[in-house]
Amino acid sequence: MTESAGTEPLGVGIIGLGTVGSGVARVLLEHPERMQRRAGRPVVLRKAVVRDLSRSRGIELPAGMLTDQVDEVLNDPETGLVVELIGGLSPAREFVERALKAGKDVVTANKALIYEHGDALCALAREQGKTIAFEAAVAAGVPIIGSVGQALAANQITGIEAVLNGTSNFILTEMSHNGLPYDAAVQLAQERGYAEADPSMDVDGTDAAHKLVILTQLAFGTRVPLDAFIRQGIDTLELADLQYARELGYRVKLLAVARIRNGLLEMHVEPTLIRRGHPMSTIEDVYNRIQIDGDVVGRVWFSGMGAGQAATASAVVADLIDTASGRTRLNFPLLDLWHQREPVPVLPADELSRRYYLRYNVIDRPHMMADVTDILGRQGISIASVMQHEAPEIDCTSDSDEEPIVPLVIMTHRTTEGQMRSADREIAQLQAVRMPRVRMPVDG
Amino acid sequence: MTESAGTEPLGVGIIGLGTVGSGVARVLLEHPERMQRRAGRPVVLRKAVVRDLSRSRGIELPAGMLTDQVDEVLNDPETGLVVELIGGLSPAREFVERALKAGKDVVTANKALIYEHGDALCALAREQGKTIAFEAAVAAGVPIIGSVGQALAANQITGIEAVLNGTSNFILTEMSHNGLPYDAAVQLAQERGYAEADPSMDVDGTDAAHKLVILTQLAFGTRVPLDAFIRQGIDTLELADLQYARELGYRVKLLAVARIRNGLLEMHVEPTLIRRGHPMSTIEDVYNRIQIDGDVVGRVWFSGMGAGQAATASAVVADLIDTASGRTRLNFPLLDLWHQREPVPVLPADELSRRYYLRYNVIDRPHMMADVTDILGRQGISIASVMQHEAPEIDCTSDSDEEPIVPLVIMTHRTTEGQMRSADREIAQLQAVRMPRVRMPVDG
Repeated sequence: MTESAGTEPLGVGIIGLGTVGSGVARVLLEHPERMQRRAGRPVVLRKAVVRDLSRSRGIELPAGMLTDQVDEVLNDPETGLVVELIGGLSPAREFVERALKAGKDVVTANKALIYEHGDALCALAREQGKTIAFEAAVAAGVPIIGSVGQALAANQITGIEAVLNGTSNFILTEMSHNGLPYDAAVQLAQERGYAEADPSMDVDGTDAAHKLVILTQLAFGTRVPLDAFIRQGIDTLELADLQYARELGYRVKLLAVARIRNGLLEMHVEPTLIRRGHPMSTIEDVYNRIQIDGDVVGRVWFSGMGAGQAATASAVVADLIDTASGRTRLNFPLLDLWHQREPVPVLPADELSRRYYLRYNVIDRPHMMADVTDILGRQGISIASVMQHEAPEIDCTSDSDEEPIVPLVIMTHRTTEGQMRSADREIAQLQAVRMPRVRMPVDG
Repeated sequence: MTESAGTEPLGVGIIGLGTVGSGVARVLLEHPERMQRRAGRPVVLRKAVVRDLSRSRGIELPAGMLTDQVDEVLNDPETGLVVELIGGLSPAREFVERALKAGKDVVTANKALIYEHGDALCALAREQGKTIAFEAAVAAGVPIIGSVGQALAANQITGIEAVLNGTSNFILTEMSHNGLPYDAAVQLAQERGYAEADPSMDVDGTDAAHKLVILTQLAFGTRVPLDAFIRQGIDTLELADLQYARELGYRVKLLAVARIRNGLLEMHVEPTLIRRGHPMSTIEDVYNRIQIDGDVVGRVWFSGMGAGQAATASAVVADLIDTASGRTRLNFPLLDLWHQREPVPVLPADELSRRYYLRYNVIDRPHMMADVTDILGRQGISIASVMQHEAPEIDCTSDSDEEPIVPLVIMTHRTTEGQMRSADREIAQLQAVRMPRVRMPVDG
């Protein structure tokens, strides 16, 4: 009765045997019975391609399975499915293209590749009658791609709000809970294997933005380039800001938002103040959480590890099973990637309407507060609360005549990004204001 | 390239047009383009069967679509899919059997039916080369059946911990947050449409237990009958217990648990104290949350409305789309329902090991505390904390000579259910102990 992809074994080749690749290989080698039961056919690892054969990998492969020749996978007629896990754009793109042209289905966890070349690669796959599955590219083990495409298929999705970068969330958690300064928290993330040697894609918001673009394309059928929306990372935050936010009853999260309001797409990735107790404020460490609003289901949440190697391997293997069982062949042509409807116009950044957290480092001198609040007032920005701690006591034995610098923290009522930017430019001109000037939106 | 179930329209008949049925009909009638895009073929509502044609339903159907003759659906050659939404065991079972025998696929939201006759109905479906989909039977709009079967397919699931009954959770939330007594909270749930006129299946834990059995069968491939595990509802709780739990830093949730430990299945549905701040303690109102532990993915969470009509309709329509697109035909034979492995033995209730919250209503007289704690001590149960509030001041103008009754609240260290039951039997014999005696496990 089934229309499955047959019961003959599916040969798999893995390109890239880092931590995720090792995790995938481990499941295939250690649980062949589980794979067969779930996929309806045997799923057999044939080759794993690495750059350096001599490096140890924490997994022992049967003799002859490890190779440094990618052609041994791409030219192998018994390999029906290629798993691309080397990351980056090149040579990942070429390998995926060659795999598709050689008549192989593809599974990848590479969000940069899907963001940058997803449309072209998926078009090529369709031409070739093959499929690409990429559940692991967004939120690792959290099944969000499948949920948007299938489980929530009854819905027009109207909003996505998510913590999508596990590395940033880990760093924020360490800063906020354990009082670690930013640099120390980044270093700890690297030691734990949560951050790359160069963590810039994670901490500057690019990684979260890539994932949000992919989700937005799936959910709204509209592709938004990275430069069309505000993208801010956590790399400009200081420990003090997290502590002030806490004092005010908030947590700071790197929040990715895409939602339709009045026919316009509001989209941004920014460190955001979220009220304590809100479901999104409680997600910690390397965990991701995605909140979806659908026009039928209401609001649903998905959470899980967003940066663990095992969690990512779980999603990759799920894609393997989906491909082996024939599900991917059904799902792939039905993804909303193909139904480019009228693109939804993106709300210009200046028109974003929200509350703000502001921190100005000011020289503690008379009339300072009046100058700042006067500028805000003239821009029509109404102040909800002000917090200015006392300056540290002056050391009379010091011969420094520097005036003490104090943080001035302001929470505004709702205003627009445009008004806020204008005010900020004016405030920057004040002689008594020093860098950094911090501005974060408040959610809700 | 696709192996979809074709591109010809799929005719749908709905049996039962209550709130969920109306929601399903609304999506089909209002969003035909969406259905076609997601399913790859038109999905067309042909008939909706109701018992009473004269009742108003909050949805206007095209002329001739409403009928009180179930045969108009079951005998219609153009109807390929029957949606059973009348609930209960009979005649739901007969209708599903007739639909399958007439060569129609089935979608149902009926957890009692799946719990009671799921095995027989699914076997019949397989014989007939047809499918049954029942995502809406567990946790309404939260896609947990699909996630366990597909998104988490790489994993052997090792643990399920869940709030699965939205009605109970709504009642607990109203009691805990708004101080409503149990009866008033039940009445409010009924007014809001969250509880039936007879809410006993919800509040006595049966509904949550049905859902847990279904999840357990899917996750562990082992079927556990209702009488093989502890099932306690919220109907024995008093407002006071929720308040004492709060004072102690906990929340009370109707928690459904199934997990493998040392080769044994630990399974129970009980009001449970959960430490404040734990993800499961923050789920409120009619929302459900399901926490899954997998041997590859680690821990993931799914949340959404567990008792809303629209949320349930979303899951039913997702099943319709899955069936129309051909996905159900692939998934159905791969469900772990079919792979009955060695059944996992259920841990005997007496051997459950956990902490307990105890409340005894005792007459405020000397040596009372010593009597109770002596019994606990002799059973080897160690006390973590005791809370006894002062008795209300005695009204000297009253001529009642009744001794005042005070609540004695005890938190124990880890012990077994068996020891706890023995102690409880002894304590019940104490002359100064009055009903009710409340005993709840503490999670974690």
